[in-house]
Amino acid sequence: MREREVIQLLRGKLPAIGDDAAVLPFGGTSLVLTTDMLYQAGDLPEGATPWAIGWRAVAVSLSDLAAMGARPLGVVLALGAPRFERELLEGIVEGALDCCRSVGASYVGGDLSAHSELTLVSAAVGEAERPVRRKGARVGDLVCVTGALGRTAAALKLFEREDFERANKLFAFPPRVREGQTLAPYATSMIDISDGLARSLHLLAEAGQVGFRVRYDAIPVVPEVDELARDEVERREMALFWGEDFELLFTLPATRLRQAQGAVEFAVIGEVGPPEEGVRLQLGGQWLELEDRGYEHFR
Amino acid sequence: MREREVIQLLRGKLPAIGDDAAVLPFGGTSLVLTTDMLYQAGDLPEGATPWAIGWRAVAVSLSDLAAMGARPLGVVLALGAPRFERELLEGIVEGALDCCRSVGASYVGGDLSAHSELTLVSAAVGEAERPVRRKGARVGDLVCVTGALGRTAAALKLFEREDFERANKLFAFPPRVREGQTLAPYATSMIDISDGLARSLHLLAEAGQVGFRVRYDAIPVVPEVDELARDEVERREMALFWGEDFELLFTLPATRLRQAQGAVEFAVIGEVGPPEEGVRLQLGGQWLELEDRGYEHFR
Repeated sequence: MREREVIQLLRGKLPAIGDDAAVLPFGGTSLVLTTDMLYQAGDLPEGATPWAIGWRAVAVSLSDLAAMGARPLGVVLALGAPRFERELLEGIVEGALDCCRSVGASYVGGDLSAHSELTLVSAAVGEAERPVRRKGARVGDLVCVTGALGRTAAALKLFEREDFERANKLFAFPPRVREGQTLAPYATSMIDISDGLARSLHLLAEAGQVGFRVRYDAIPVVPEVDELARDEVERREMALFWGEDFELLFTLPATRLRQAQGAVEFAVIGEVGPPEEGVRLQLGGQWLELEDRGYEHFR
Repeated sequence: MREREVIQLLRGKLPAIGDDAAVLPFGGTSLVLTTDMLYQAGDLPEGATPWAIGWRAVAVSLSDLAAMGARPLGVVLALGAPRFERELLEGIVEGALDCCRSVGASYVGGDLSAHSELTLVSAAVGEAERPVRRKGARVGDLVCVTGALGRTAAALKLFEREDFERANKLFAFPPRVREGQTLAPYATSMIDISDGLARSLHLLAEAGQVGFRVRYDAIPVVPEVDELARDEVERREMALFWGEDFELLFTLPATRLRQAQGAVEFAVIGEVGPPEEGVRLQLGGQWLELEDRGYEHFR
């Protein structure tokens, strides 16, 4: 089965899924819970340091909490490996600890298991009084992103070139936890860009029954993309489709723009349109349909 | 590094670890959070059905919540597999759903990833007003277990014999969530027996700075152990050392015995002694030192 068929099957059985993290009403507030799996062959390039791997392993779950506007409470990390050598284990744990500390989360435990292949699965629980969903964008809202895109695409190119120092720096991305919490009162919908900007826009469009108009020139891209992309076509691939980006994509009523920009740095890249318009990209003066394509977790 | 060295290393970096689940103070209560990894070669015998695999994958985390006396709130399941075939995926999800339903937990989502080997990692969050710890046993307390031991040992023998129907029934064990919550007001310490009775007694002894006197004849064992064990030596291996049993081992002041037994079924297998006595087993009229040996998650 392909990824979309699988998701359809799961939606039938687990009607609650469809956001970056699951929402559990608790007392007068909500807990949010998420998990993410990384494994050697698919997610961990040759040359990634144990520290960067540990950081990234928890950052992917923290990014899901960020996309819900949640405050992280606790993180656990399950580790499988053929052998636990001291350097590997210490590096992973230090990286995970440093990432958790950077956003005020507590790394509180996990599980260790033999495994044929290095496998890291984090889970994180957080709290959000009003979790921000993928559903909620309204026609006329602005479309915005934190940070700059293409970060993982650039990191993977640098790993290929064995420029490991720069690669590892990009690979250990900052989860936008503070930004997510600060934006929660303003955002009408939010998602992290782990599937790439194009796919993430389509996911928000489907959830909210809206369309999007996005201007390519307005999309912030990390400087390494401009340095590393062979040509303009590859630059677009890296910025729009490569994915694993972990910046926040969100929508915002125009009336809240000034307040939100006073609190967090982000870029306005377009606006919400009616659903019949679909997801369109302005590129070199032309409006094109933006393909629904991005990072696939399996084929 | 061997398992104990690894745990020592982790304790230095993560001082909060040492219970079946991590405790996160939250409002006036506590959240507990845990994760467990299962993978094909180490944990999933040939002949295990997708349903039983899905059940067990979440049951191991629910058992950790049970050992803390916690009420489960939500469960997520990360799945890695070379291919997601409909039958496999549906079976796993149905098994996980049925297990969660059986204890009032919500299965709310997860992650899907390509992987070289079938890998299932559950995480569960629960609530406990007063989480029961491994530390807390007092000299004179009674030592008790729920259910009967040797269940997974017997299941694995039945899988080997290709008696798959009985094997799968034992493999999909009931997590003792109701029992854990009911015992929480009485128990002075608690752990699940995932590492085997012998190792679990040593873990409680170390955490509580106490010793144990346990009578072999008082230990309840599943009938399949008596049927399948080649001899008395193997029977003891299956009951005491094999592990992956997921019953609750707990201590209780003698004065609370009647009340607790009115609420939950369990067996009294011994009592708590002073630390200098160590962990001893009465076997055929003799008191022997009980070896600190059990299930190892890796070597």
